[in-house]
Amino acid sequence: MTAYQSLETRFARMASIADAVGILQWDAETMMPQGANEGRADQLATLKGLAHQMLVSSETADLLADAGEGAGLDAWQQANLREMRRTFLHAAALPADLVEASSRAVSRAEMVWREARPAGDFAMLKPHLAEVLNLQRQIGQAKGEKMGIAPYDALLDGYDPGLRQARIDPIFADLAAGLPDLIQAALARQAERPGVMPLDGPFPVEVQRAVGERLMRAAGFDFDRGRLDVSLHPFCGGSTGDVRITTRYSEANFLGSLMGVLHETGHALYEQGRPAAFARQPVGQARGMTLHESQSLLVEMQAARSPQFVSYLAPLAREAFGGSGPAWTEENLLRLVTRVEPGFIRVDADEVTYPAHVLVRYDVEKALIAGDLAIDDLPGAFNDGIRALLGLEVPNDRLGCLQDIHWPGGGWGYFPTYTLGAMAAAQLFEAACRAVPDALPALARGDFGPLRGWLRENVHAKGSLLDTDDLLVAATGRPLGAEVFQAHLRRRYL
Amino acid sequence: MTAYQSLETRFARMASIADAVGILQWDAETMMPQGANEGRADQLATLKGLAHQMLVSSETADLLADAGEGAGLDAWQQANLREMRRTFLHAAALPADLVEASSRAVSRAEMVWREARPAGDFAMLKPHLAEVLNLQRQIGQAKGEKMGIAPYDALLDGYDPGLRQARIDPIFADLAAGLPDLIQAALARQAERPGVMPLDGPFPVEVQRAVGERLMRAAGFDFDRGRLDVSLHPFCGGSTGDVRITTRYSEANFLGSLMGVLHETGHALYEQGRPAAFARQPVGQARGMTLHESQSLLVEMQAARSPQFVSYLAPLAREAFGGSGPAWTEENLLRLVTRVEPGFIRVDADEVTYPAHVLVRYDVEKALIAGDLAIDDLPGAFNDGIRALLGLEVPNDRLGCLQDIHWPGGGWGYFPTYTLGAMAAAQLFEAACRAVPDALPALARGDFGPLRGWLRENVHAKGSLLDTDDLLVAATGRPLGAEVFQAHLRRRYL
Repeated sequence: MTAYQSLETRFARMASIADAVGILQWDAETMMPQGANEGRADQLATLKGLAHQMLVSSETADLLADAGEGAGLDAWQQANLREMRRTFLHAAALPADLVEASSRAVSRAEMVWREARPAGDFAMLKPHLAEVLNLQRQIGQAKGEKMGIAPYDALLDGYDPGLRQARIDPIFADLAAGLPDLIQAALARQAERPGVMPLDGPFPVEVQRAVGERLMRAAGFDFDRGRLDVSLHPFCGGSTGDVRITTRYSEANFLGSLMGVLHETGHALYEQGRPAAFARQPVGQARGMTLHESQSLLVEMQAARSPQFVSYLAPLAREAFGGSGPAWTEENLLRLVTRVEPGFIRVDADEVTYPAHVLVRYDVEKALIAGDLAIDDLPGAFNDGIRALLGLEVPNDRLGCLQDIHWPGGGWGYFPTYTLGAMAAAQLFEAACRAVPDALPALARGDFGPLRGWLRENVHAKGSLLDTDDLLVAATGRPLGAEVFQAHLRRRYL
Repeated sequence: MTAYQSLETRFARMASIADAVGILQWDAETMMPQGANEGRADQLATLKGLAHQMLVSSETADLLADAGEGAGLDAWQQANLREMRRTFLHAAALPADLVEASSRAVSRAEMVWREARPAGDFAMLKPHLAEVLNLQRQIGQAKGEKMGIAPYDALLDGYDPGLRQARIDPIFADLAAGLPDLIQAALARQAERPGVMPLDGPFPVEVQRAVGERLMRAAGFDFDRGRLDVSLHPFCGGSTGDVRITTRYSEANFLGSLMGVLHETGHALYEQGRPAAFARQPVGQARGMTLHESQSLLVEMQAARSPQFVSYLAPLAREAFGGSGPAWTEENLLRLVTRVEPGFIRVDADEVTYPAHVLVRYDVEKALIAGDLAIDDLPGAFNDGIRALLGLEVPNDRLGCLQDIHWPGGGWGYFPTYTLGAMAAAQLFEAACRAVPDALPALARGDFGPLRGWLRENVHAKGSLLDTDDLLVAATGRPLGAEVFQAHLRRRYL
């Protein structure tokens, strides 16, 4: 067995452990009785520890040193070896005590955050957040030294291989320059149109689930290799070949859950479409969070909120929920799913104002990691950003810098991928509609087939063969940028 | 850290892996989409392999050699060390290639069995069954040599520590001597009584589940540390502190599922009542399959089919299912749940005829392992046994020696624990009713509290501190035997 083959065996075993972890985490959010929390934490820590040991072991290091790129490896195998090295680098760069200290600090900070957020009490969270920040900076430094890049870049690289601050800055600057005006123009345009009529519920959960499953099937979700369940916070999880998405239902509003289901379905299609031949290898994994978010936003924002899809959805929804009258017309439904409304909460934001939330968080976390912003000044900087971009005065930290779990949770360098994903989604959707003329018209028949076929070939089946920019150039003719996204927003909202 | 403390840490980690395996196996039977089968097999093989490596490693062996029994260990810790050694012995006795060969042979034989059983085609299964038998014999030999016991004894010991053929033979001989007459007498007595009236369904699954959950709560099942779900084959599984039982529903018959739920609840109470201080240690585990089966049969057969409990169940069932008339009286319900009917299928047997199925299987598998019976003669020997004990002529192997998965599945030495469990259940129930006079009367109020309290103290909380016989002597005043069980059958059926 060559060194490369031994590595494939080794990484497949680690993938099996990661898959087991994926199911156990899904179970913890959907099925597990409350009292089992502590035992589950033990199980997860044990399995993650075993996989980590296997990854950073001297055997893995020796095999990586012995596996020659040129030694008869094809392009996929070479890319696989590259991804193995990247995975190893990220894990081996960190001393065990730093990993442990960070994990402990995150657990504590998340616990305090659950109390501090509803109370809007930043002072309560501050010492714990400072500790998480301190350790994230050390993690970025340790990885950055090995990779020859800045600490924040090293953190970005953990979520999106190859992503760098120098790449993001001009794109976000471009977007930020026009965003406040675009938002105001969209609001003015909206004010000129007929008012949005609310849909009167209640909408039974059983009907919502049936409609959600029907649209998942239409989008191409394979229920033989996945499930739909309920959890407090919607997510796409599970394991290789067993992709499980979740939603939550409100009887007062079915569109929220439905659009959430379609969002997670976009993630799931990516997971279900990964290259089967490398399913449990690093090169077979999805390529970073920007492209992952692009797939969810492509389905939810580009496809499902298009006039074409809404023309399919309207009669289906009327029949399922027994709706009738002017609120249930195609036109009103379209206005409902494309309503613009600046607000304080990121996860409730529409696609026009959402980038503002991300731009603010990006600037703040970058400055915190670099040491250019003191943690005492976090709330002020956050609120200044919201004022500048959205024109809103944040009344308290509950609606401000305390709203997201990412910072106490140790997810530094993650936020930018939401908006980069929205841009990639716009680029990919435009390219798909150009390459496959029926992609958009077919949505009016509830047929995602033409669109999905293009995505499968150009995105899903590529796994991690290409870097994000290379994949985008190959698929859309240009690297990641704000232009197509901006054009999409102008076309839809102005 | 002493060697003993290091062992505790090590075994706790193995328990966490086993707990993860428990949840993944539960998921595979209840939630997993079909297409995920292969991936799940990978996950389970990987995790089991890791735990096995950890168990049989030289580090474990060295620690076991260094850990002195006298070195300040209390009785629980000494018993824990004894159980660690036993666990190690069973695992380390087998060379890796024998474990692998057996696992492969079992997978193949189970697959063939799924086809051979419905076809009643013993010839089809025979070569595969011969291979499983051959490997089981080797396993028994390898373990037996290390333990200084016969191969079949070593197999028994794997399911029930300390159980030996020499212990079973006189007990089963005692039982077999009286069983045919007892069955005939019970049938004659039954024929003299009023006929049993069937309950007319359909019984909605939702109502069945609600009734099942209500009775689980009454029995003391803790839903904060467990669940009830649906699977093709009912079982009690999950993990430490997260005990998950399953059932299957038929709209035509609610008593089958309900008694099944109570059976699994008996298993679950044992698991939920294990000693918390040693929850993830070998001494904290349930003591073998005889006692485990005793707890399920105690709840299902001794308690739930008693006139007292049926007097509580009858009005509850009438209300839940809207039943009325003579079929729904307490008397008829009691006759329904204590009906005796000799048949071919073990899992459908009543408590009077069930032991006959086990006695036949015990004699056959003992002789096969010892080489006293050729595999060609298995069907004949099986059918002879059924004729002798039940007076039935087995018409084909589907209703005969092909009906159970145990033999192709590698579960040799397991069958006797079903009937030994029924005996232990009778002994424990009698002792509980003697020690706690309200235990039986309370069942008429749906109150399992007095009974459960006694079981918790005398069985569940003991974990593996005592051997089965020592536990029974301490709890009931006598070692395991057939007498109390026989007396119970005579009292209830004659």
